[in-house]
Amino acid sequence: MSFIEELENIDLEIPKGGLSAKIALAKKEKRPLRVKLGLDPTKPDIHLGHYVVLRVLRKFLKIGAKIFLVVGDFTAMIGDPSGRDKTRPPLTHQEIQRNAQTYVEQLGRVLDTSKIEVVFNSTWLSKISLENFIKILAKFNLSEILARDDFKQRFNGGFPIAMHELIYPLMQAYDSYYLKADVEIGGSDQLFNMQMGRSLQEAFAESAQVIITTPLLIGIDGVNKMSKSLNNYIAITEEPKDIYAKILAIPDSLIPDYLKLVCDLPKAKKRELLARLQKNVNPFLIKKELAFQIVCQFYDKKAAKDSEEYFYRQFEEEDIKKKIYLKKTFSDLGINKEKFTLLDLVFALGVRNSKSEARRLILQGAVSVNGEKIKDPYFIFKNPKTPLFIRAGQKDFFSIS
Amino acid sequence: MSFIEELENIDLEIPKGGLSAKIALAKKEKRPLRVKLGLDPTKPDIHLGHYVVLRVLRKFLKIGAKIFLVVGDFTAMIGDPSGRDKTRPPLTHQEIQRNAQTYVEQLGRVLDTSKIEVVFNSTWLSKISLENFIKILAKFNLSEILARDDFKQRFNGGFPIAMHELIYPLMQAYDSYYLKADVEIGGSDQLFNMQMGRSLQEAFAESAQVIITTPLLIGIDGVNKMSKSLNNYIAITEEPKDIYAKILAIPDSLIPDYLKLVCDLPKAKKRELLARLQKNVNPFLIKKELAFQIVCQFYDKKAAKDSEEYFYRQFEEEDIKKKIYLKKTFSDLGINKEKFTLLDLVFALGVRNSKSEARRLILQGAVSVNGEKIKDPYFIFKNPKTPLFIRAGQKDFFSIS
Repeated sequence: MSFIEELENIDLEIPKGGLSAKIALAKKEKRPLRVKLGLDPTKPDIHLGHYVVLRVLRKFLKIGAKIFLVVGDFTAMIGDPSGRDKTRPPLTHQEIQRNAQTYVEQLGRVLDTSKIEVVFNSTWLSKISLENFIKILAKFNLSEILARDDFKQRFNGGFPIAMHELIYPLMQAYDSYYLKADVEIGGSDQLFNMQMGRSLQEAFAESAQVIITTPLLIGIDGVNKMSKSLNNYIAITEEPKDIYAKILAIPDSLIPDYLKLVCDLPKAKKRELLARLQKNVNPFLIKKELAFQIVCQFYDKKAAKDSEEYFYRQFEEEDIKKKIYLKKTFSDLGINKEKFTLLDLVFALGVRNSKSEARRLILQGAVSVNGEKIKDPYFIFKNPKTPLFIRAGQKDFFSIS
Repeated sequence: MSFIEELENIDLEIPKGGLSAKIALAKKEKRPLRVKLGLDPTKPDIHLGHYVVLRVLRKFLKIGAKIFLVVGDFTAMIGDPSGRDKTRPPLTHQEIQRNAQTYVEQLGRVLDTSKIEVVFNSTWLSKISLENFIKILAKFNLSEILARDDFKQRFNGGFPIAMHELIYPLMQAYDSYYLKADVEIGGSDQLFNMQMGRSLQEAFAESAQVIITTPLLIGIDGVNKMSKSLNNYIAITEEPKDIYAKILAIPDSLIPDYLKLVCDLPKAKKRELLARLQKNVNPFLIKKELAFQIVCQFYDKKAAKDSEEYFYRQFEEEDIKKKIYLKKTFSDLGINKEKFTLLDLVFALGVRNSKSEARRLILQGAVSVNGEKIKDPYFIFKNPKTPLFIRAGQKDFFSIS
């Protein structure tokens, strides 16, 4: 599998020709590919949202790319000089160093950090003269900057935009120019700033970086982008049992995204899980597998098993039943509750593709009703007490009423 | 007469309380008032348009103010980095020094330059760190900057505004902050930039400068602001005879403005000239007095007389007649051309307020017709050959047909 195919495997949209050309150029110039990833030093906790990007970085590490982790300390040390944004107090040099160190330690859990160079953009930005900065500014028109969604909305809405905010994207762009980045990776909300990097490189007659954007991960609230400030995040350093429980708590609608964006299972396995989800399998069971896998990624199998057991110990049997049994009604299934056979029911639940497969499942002793195994496909129910708890095979649980 | 009354005498709009308070403060702090005037080092020729401001500066010099002539060399050395404005090639340090020197030499003709300090804003602007500049930017919102007329028009018209242009007003504002200017003087087209100076001083908890704007002088084309690039200017270093001729060439409609803005005659004398203008006196004669005075201001009386003589030598008698004789028609004057007396005519011309004064003028021998003195008020004309050239007193010439 080629490198680009591998990247596509993790569901990224990549400017194919551009990236291939960059890789070829680096090879021709006998130097490593230069890959840039920006970090916000004001938020030092790495969570699953970051992991979306880190998975890509890992691919680049594998092909021997030089990774620059750019700590945006220059503006972090300035904070918000207008004083409006109370959430951005200026950080001291010490705080930033500490945060950067924390970052690297966390990254060490998922990446080989020995091949990553952490750089601080104050190193070069603090040395730019006003004269040179004016020459950078001159490369852009106001309308280009105001094209950024948040600026556009605020401007059109009559909300103030402080002048210094307008130039922050250009400083991030300058980082790319200074580092001679071949590739910049970032969340899709960084697309505009990364494009400014391309523009600036081109304005100074350098080859423009290729941009790889990763989708934003929705937080466990199911609504907003995962972020620390919204407290809808799962930090990669959290206790295994907490990661496990939080994954189980995500809305079912997020399962496909989480599988796609933060789960390192082989693509075939993910496809299988998605297929089961589409076939009415209880989503809770899919989440259990997802949670198990995520804990494995940041810890190991032992930790994942312990987390699972811990989770079950927290709940009474009935609670778990409520959680893991997919609710169905007889009328949903087209079954006359007055009288039906076990085979009628198991087939109607759709856990197997044909009636003969469903029959085989029962004969194998893989189906139990209210905790009791029943091996007779033609066992007859007459107006049973509801809900009826059915387990069909290892993974499918139903409560029917 | 108080200082502020003197300023009002030269027709300026001055924030009275503000200026008085500044003068009082400087006095209390036992230091000179700090007055700032910005100069564009790309246009080193001082013309009458500048003289409007210099007259004010002279007043401040008289009260012992400290005058800072700020040479905007910082941006002049950068030029237009976007390359769009071909009229703004970057100047070298040497060119700017030379232009500044030229400036001071020219100023020496009209001001005591020994009391003026010429400063170059690159001295401080080249030393601002990007960090500090960001803190300056943060004091302003985009909407405040876009309020400047030319920006607003371009923005609303969909014309590009390069990012560096937006920050130029802030650099000029910073000059005021750096120099701790009490007062800034400038043409009314500089009002916005000077107000930015006030905002910046206040943002950094300094007392805001008082702004004195002078009206823009229309150039000799009668249409546009006087400027070198439009070639509608009168440089203060031009030859006396050229200044004289150019003043004579201004459209009559500009006479009141020129009297008000660039003429140093006493206010009473100016009022008299304006009154004569309103009373149908030939405007050419007023311009002659204006031209004479302007040459006196930049040279001396001898030069003014020589210029006048030179001017007359250039033209045949008839040409001069065409120029200096105010054209009237008999019907304008309500005179029956078939038959009228000299007194009828002189009174109708309005050069004196009453018929008896007009009669006295004729009796004094101050009226001549076609070059011949006529002392009889009741001299009768019958359908005379036209145009009839009349001189009434020293200053009023008419050609009547």
